Amino acid sequence: MIGPAEERTPREGSVVPTTFPRSRKVYVEGSRPDLRVPFREISLDVTVNPMTGNERANPPVRVYDPSGPYTDPESDIDVHRGLEPVRAAWIAERDDTEELTGSSSNYAQVREADEALDRLRFTRTQRPRRAKAGGNISQMHYARQGIITPEMEFVAIRENLRRQQASEYLAQHPGDGLGASIPDEVTPEFVRDEVARGRAIIPNNVNHPESEPMIIGRNFLVKINANIGNSAVTSTIEEEVEKMVHSIRWGADTVMDLSTGANIHETREWILRNSPVPIGTVPIYQALEKVDGKAEDLTWEIFRDTLIEQAEQGVDYFTIHAGVLLRYVPLTAKRVTGIVSRGGSILAKWCLSHHQENFLYTHFEDICEIMKAYDVAFSLGDGLRPGCIADANDEAQFGELETLGELTEIAWKHDVQVMIEGPGHVPMQLIKENMEKQLEVCKEAPFYTLGPLTTDIAPGFDHITSAIGAAMIGWFGTAMLCYVTPKEHLGLPNRDDVRQGVIAYKIAAHAADLAKGHPGAQAWDNALSIARFEFRWEDQFALALDPLTAREYHDETLPAEGAKVAHFCSMCGPHFCSMKITQDVRDYAAQMGLDAEREALQAGLTEMSEQFRAKGGEIYHAEGETADTASA
Amino acid sequence: MIGPAEERTPREGSVVPTTFPRSRKVYVEGSRPDLRVPFREISLDVTVNPMTGNERANPPVRVYDPSGPYTDPESDIDVHRGLEPVRAAWIAERDDTEELTGSSSNYAQVREADEALDRLRFTRTQRPRRAKAGGNISQMHYARQGIITPEMEFVAIRENLRRQQASEYLAQHPGDGLGASIPDEVTPEFVRDEVARGRAIIPNNVNHPESEPMIIGRNFLVKINANIGNSAVTSTIEEEVEKMVHSIRWGADTVMDLSTGANIHETREWILRNSPVPIGTVPIYQALEKVDGKAEDLTWEIFRDTLIEQAEQGVDYFTIHAGVLLRYVPLTAKRVTGIVSRGGSILAKWCLSHHQENFLYTHFEDICEIMKAYDVAFSLGDGLRPGCIADANDEAQFGELETLGELTEIAWKHDVQVMIEGPGHVPMQLIKENMEKQLEVCKEAPFYTLGPLTTDIAPGFDHITSAIGAAMIGWFGTAMLCYVTPKEHLGLPNRDDVRQGVIAYKIAAHAADLAKGHPGAQAWDNALSIARFEFRWEDQFALALDPLTAREYHDETLPAEGAKVAHFCSMCGPHFCSMKITQDVRDYAAQMGLDAEREALQAGLTEMSEQFRAKGGEIYHAEGETADTASA
Repeated sequence: MIGPAEERTPREGSVVPTTFPRSRKVYVEGSRPDLRVPFREISLDVTVNPMTGNERANPPVRVYDPSGPYTDPESDIDVHRGLEPVRAAWIAERDDTEELTGSSSNYAQVREADEALDRLRFTRTQRPRRAKAGGNISQMHYARQGIITPEMEFVAIRENLRRQQASEYLAQHPGDGLGASIPDEVTPEFVRDEVARGRAIIPNNVNHPESEPMIIGRNFLVKINANIGNSAVTSTIEEEVEKMVHSIRWGADTVMDLSTGANIHETREWILRNSPVPIGTVPIYQALEKVDGKAEDLTWEIFRDTLIEQAEQGVDYFTIHAGVLLRYVPLTAKRVTGIVSRGGSILAKWCLSHHQENFLYTHFEDICEIMKAYDVAFSLGDGLRPGCIADANDEAQFGELETLGELTEIAWKHDVQVMIEGPGHVPMQLIKENMEKQLEVCKEAPFYTLGPLTTDIAPGFDHITSAIGAAMIGWFGTAMLCYVTPKEHLGLPNRDDVRQGVIAYKIAAHAADLAKGHPGAQAWDNALSIARFEFRWEDQFALALDPLTAREYHDETLPAEGAKVAHFCSMCGPHFCSMKITQDVRDYAAQMGLDAEREALQAGLTEMSEQFRAKGGEIYHAEGETADTASA
Repeated sequence: MIGPAEERTPREGSVVPTTFPRSRKVYVEGSRPDLRVPFREISLDVTVNPMTGNERANPPVRVYDPSGPYTDPESDIDVHRGLEPVRAAWIAERDDTEELTGSSSNYAQVREADEALDRLRFTRTQRPRRAKAGGNISQMHYARQGIITPEMEFVAIRENLRRQQASEYLAQHPGDGLGASIPDEVTPEFVRDEVARGRAIIPNNVNHPESEPMIIGRNFLVKINANIGNSAVTSTIEEEVEKMVHSIRWGADTVMDLSTGANIHETREWILRNSPVPIGTVPIYQALEKVDGKAEDLTWEIFRDTLIEQAEQGVDYFTIHAGVLLRYVPLTAKRVTGIVSRGGSILAKWCLSHHQENFLYTHFEDICEIMKAYDVAFSLGDGLRPGCIADANDEAQFGELETLGELTEIAWKHDVQVMIEGPGHVPMQLIKENMEKQLEVCKEAPFYTLGPLTTDIAPGFDHITSAIGAAMIGWFGTAMLCYVTPKEHLGLPNRDDVRQGVIAYKIAAHAADLAKGHPGAQAWDNALSIARFEFRWEDQFALALDPLTAREYHDETLPAEGAKVAHFCSMCGPHFCSMKITQDVRDYAAQMGLDAEREALQAGLTEMSEQFRAKGGEIYHAEGETADTASA
């Protein structure tokens, strides 16, 4: 049933490139001209010493940028044509795939032949590809053969943010996640090695050549995922494409299309063709739609056809709830909130209906064969994750995790990339145990957690209840954090909810990078802190995770343009600024040689202090010389 | 200078009682009829079994309620008259204070005699009180003499939320803060003992008899403080009173008036007379205004007069930056952001100007004498707290903390209540060290931290960057969390920012209570989770920290009244609900005796499973019997 609300596809020109203030897209070229790694570069004002007029340049700050061409004003965006297939040449050169004449999925064939759907259709120009018979085209397979792919090189360049000497104290306390070992320089060989070991994945379906490679692993920057997707109740294709663009603009590293409503196949095609980030799905959702929502009618054949349908569209990772075993299901009956994962519920119902073991488990090796033919990565779903604080870390949850560990080893036997999904709802004192157990049981395969939410009492603010848990588990070693929006438990997120969720999770991920002692993370904090200290307001806005909100809040009380360079702010007023006073202290230290004074003071406030007192009088001046903090 | 913006006092009827949905104010009477402890009681719908029509009542949930008479529709609010002095009789009965004819502060006398200020003035009816000559009227003094005051009994009743059996797993993992020992039942004697030891404080100035007693200590519920106050740039008295009411409505346990703008004395009077929660201030801010913002002109005499002025108005705790010692100041010169505390900056400037030790340090025992004459508690300020990630846990910060430890012991020698302020900006891996050091150095005096912010890159969202750190440090043992609003670093918070900040911090405090294993904390989470599981939407809204936002978000996608009892929601649509499926699983378990099946399954999916399979067929029904989760 295609209702009027559901049928709207993206209008021409509905998506145009946007940029952030003082920011430009820069590309770092790798070993070949078609390997161009994007960054956002934020330019900063010079610092002027108001006493001497001397200027000090502030180097631009380069930050990781998943937003793709949508923030490059040079790019020619046309959502009806889709993005450039930047990886197409790399895939073709490997010469290990073949072009198909059309989709191998029965469902896709029927759907694509239906003229009634023409007006909803993205007109795809590239044919689907698949590994040549018996081949394995996964990044893990290449890595284990010692091959460094362009994807790996791309990722290595991308992860090398400006390294910065931490302050003295921090240098001595470099962070203490659970045994992460982030190198000072990320080399392509390091990337290859991490992928080969299974400690990191590069989700890169050959049918999604539009994607800019990114890596998920605990020895890299912590990533975040944004969920979008319609439901039977709401949303259009146009809205979903906009949400995807919006997600990555604010910083999402991957996007999951969790649509369960109308036109799932067509919606996904629009999203994939326009997405520069990996797209994940939960194929069981669509499979269930194909059997009219009756879990017990699901079959391996329908599911298999769905995997092929989606793999040939280009989905980069699949959530597969293969750990929901029949014997674990009864363990949930006494929970406060039973099974809350949709996938978990569907499979639990199927298992109980048939009194058979989960067909995803029994067919796991068949699934591996599909995964390696397109390079789709597993995201092994935690169908039995707790749905509330009271159910955290229980027998059902950890039983399933053990099974996910077994399945990880089977996938690795096939050289198929794997990450593991984690909870959910967990009070703070039980978070670390999740990470420890996952590392042990799943042999360091990347962990990908939803939150966790650290309390259940704040619907409407679960981006916050969960950002707390997400930051902590990211610190401990989770490689990717699945965002939660303010609408969690209440409704489907709209564009603004997506933004709120992404920003909350960028905060959590960055806080985790700092706590893990990531050598590139602190440069950004320092640049912003120095801009703040020097009252370079425009720089402070530009360096903010959300420059627009930062400026808007500032302008509410001090809207005048002049206030953007004012050496005070609305909190304290013109002659009452602690930063100004600190500057005086610093000037004083510089003028008087405070190292010497410090020694004197520590020796007991004696002789030398007398000398300083004697100098008295004019020791402050209105605006002081800026200390050399840029290199601190 | 009184400008048109600053001179507006609260209009008649500008503040009226408001209530939350399904909530009523209840009072628990103590050992005397004038000891009435308020709670918010949230009533819940019955759960109806759609199969049998059987009903199960859901007991109402009682939550801690700092909002005072403002959420009691029976109360007669008149901001021009102020609140009832609920503690006046207790104070009078002790017969250890004397009524003064007027303020003992020179400044207050001049100010109160100035007819030009009449129109800004709250007309106070009660005269200020002070301990009789040489007396000590602090709660700590009483506690150490073995006296249980009505304030202590009030607090004991208030802290006894419904105790609830945690789930099996949680019962075995009861939380692991740094050695907190929360009793199963909070008795008045336990309160007395904690206050006597200095592990908790009850901020209760005798000149603020309108306040409902509350306690700050790590063996009690974690509290939050909201900062309000005008600056030279913005705000009116009316706005500040509204912000105070707004803060406590959303859950602030204390409020600090940090005004630095016009009419500080008058603004504070309006706030105090209308506040049911303790009010804190930073007296050095007003003292600085009295010397026209010139830190070097500050004197002990001016400061002392300010302390008396404020103590006689009724301020319950004073931030005193007595740990900013001359020898620590140069340690900040090489920081990325120097000194960011306003109080710290002022005193650093004073110390350097005079080459003398901080007069708050040298006069500390004089200050103790004032504190004990009114029962004002110390909040020993961390003037050298870090202002950015790079400066966290440095020599200046920890040097000052050592001094605060010394001062704590001096205050305790005088039986004066003390809490210790903490940072600030701290990356996650360095948070625990702050708590450990504070507990050790300050001998378990309550810690009161600002955040900490766990990254500096998100101005506009620092309620989130800091809620992460606040939740963690609360878990470790911080007794009160000072909120941060979205406007932090950008502007003065307005009413909505106050709400956002309070909600973020209620989340952090409650997450900390859960993680510490507070026996009363989880009842609230469980009640909400069960309501969610049973699709009792109205109950879910009513139990939310912010019921209005929760309902508003839900209504955006499913506004119809019918949807409030619908057994599905907009996220998944009508026939695709994991909670519904879980219910089926649970019904199945109940019908089939799944404990038996579980044993069979664990023995190897053998014989008994065959029997279950044989039963087959009609094992699900549309809406199932509700399992007995209310007691889980």
